[in-house]
Order: sequence, then C-alpha cells, then structure tokens
Amino acid sequence: MRAEMLTSILSELNGTSADIEASGVISTDGLMMAAVLPQNLDEDRVGAMSAAMLSLGDRTAQELARGALEQVLIKGDKGYVLMTYAGKEAVLTVMAKPNAKLGLIFLDVKRAAESIAGLI
Amino acid sequence: MRAEMLTSILSELNGTSADIEASGVISTDGLMMAAVLPQNLDEDRVGAMSAAMLSLGDRTAQELARGALEQVLIKGDKGYVLMTYAGKEAVLTVMAKPNAKLGLIFLDVKRAAESIAGLI
Repeated sequence: MRAEMLTSILSELNGTSADIEASGVISTDGLMMAAVLPQNLDEDRVGAMSAAMLSLGDRTAQELARGALEQVLIKGDKGYVLMTYAGKEAVLTVMAKPNAKLGLIFLDVKRAAESIAGLI
Repeated sequence: MRAEMLTSILSELNGTSADIEASGVISTDGLMMAAVLPQNLDEDRVGAMSAAMLSLGDRTAQELARGALEQVLIKGDKGYVLMTYAGKEAVLTVMAKPNAKLGLIFLDVKRAAESIAGLI
C-alpha cells in the first residue's frame, strides 16, 4: 500500500513538469523504496549514487560549517540530479533536463518531499 | 602574480554580496590555489572536501546520464556550498549564507569562474 502511495506521489511529481525525467525515493542507506524511472536508468545505480552523494554531502556540510544537510544538486551538461531529504530516513532523488527551470523544480520537489515524509 | 590576481577575483566576488561568506580556487586534485576565507574555515579542509565532492559528483553525473559535471550545490540549514568548474583544472568553491539569493550567487560565481579560467 505504502509503496503504491509513494509511486503515486512520484508519478504526480514527474507529471508536474516536462523537465522532470525521473524520480525515486531511497532509504538513507541506499535502498530503493519507490521509483518512476525511464528504461535507461537502473534503480540500483540511482540508489547507490544517491546514498554515496548524501553521505559525502553530510560530511561536507559538517566540515564546512553548513549545518545539517538538506539538499544536494548536481549539474551536468546533460541535466540535473537533485537529492532532498524527505524526513530523516528517506531521500527524494529527481533527475531533470539541462534547461529545467530550477525555481519550479525546487518548489515541486519540496512539496513532494513533505508528502513522502508524512507517509514514511 | 597569478596567485594575487586570483585572490583579487575572490575578494571582488566576496564583496559583490553580503551573502557570500568565503571563496577559494582549488586544483581538481584538491590543492588550494587561492582563498579568501574567514578564520573558522581551514584551507586544507575546504580543498579536501571540494575535491572529494567533485570526484563523486563526476561519477554520479556519468552513472545517471547527466553528462559532464559543471556544478555541485550543497544546502545545509546553516548555508550553502557551491562548487563550479573554472576551466578543466580548477574549481571555484563558494560558501554562502542560508538565506542567500541563489540566482544572484549563480550569476556572480559564473562570471568569476570565467575570469579564473582565463587566468589559469
């Protein structure tokens, strides 16, 4: 049931903008809880890279006096990866196109992360 | 001379906005080339964490089909760290306050990164 509700939140998120290509909810230890991904993206790979980035992001935020980690954004020339804590035990990872409007993505992702945090 | 010109670009960058707290230019292997940091931030620590984040960011961008890495942004509850390639051999790392206006920071950092890339 919960997995279906998570998937439904992700489908809705992916539908809010044509710029969002994929999304997934991942436990902080890197295991996938729900995902709506295109065929070229592997669930395990998304989970593993999200967990690794968050772990190093946590440490960087601490070492550089930035407080508790909330978000990591990666920009490549072919698009974005945005990782956002959804509560303390899960992370919402979203992939977006290179020309995405970041302000809108941040807003939609924040709302989805709050819904996910309320479910878990 | 070059170090002084880099430091001058960083001082100017830190001066463009009260939201920018610190900045540094780091070689892609993590060695500091120039820095304008407050006393509570250690040069070696900024260099090491920047190099580690960029290395994992490169790999994440590749594994998740985001192309060549351009930027990594970390948001903590006490502020931001923004790492931006300045050419292929150096990285501009900037630390900003939690309520910083990201659009302005991105713009100023992009300009500074272009100046730095032209110098190195």
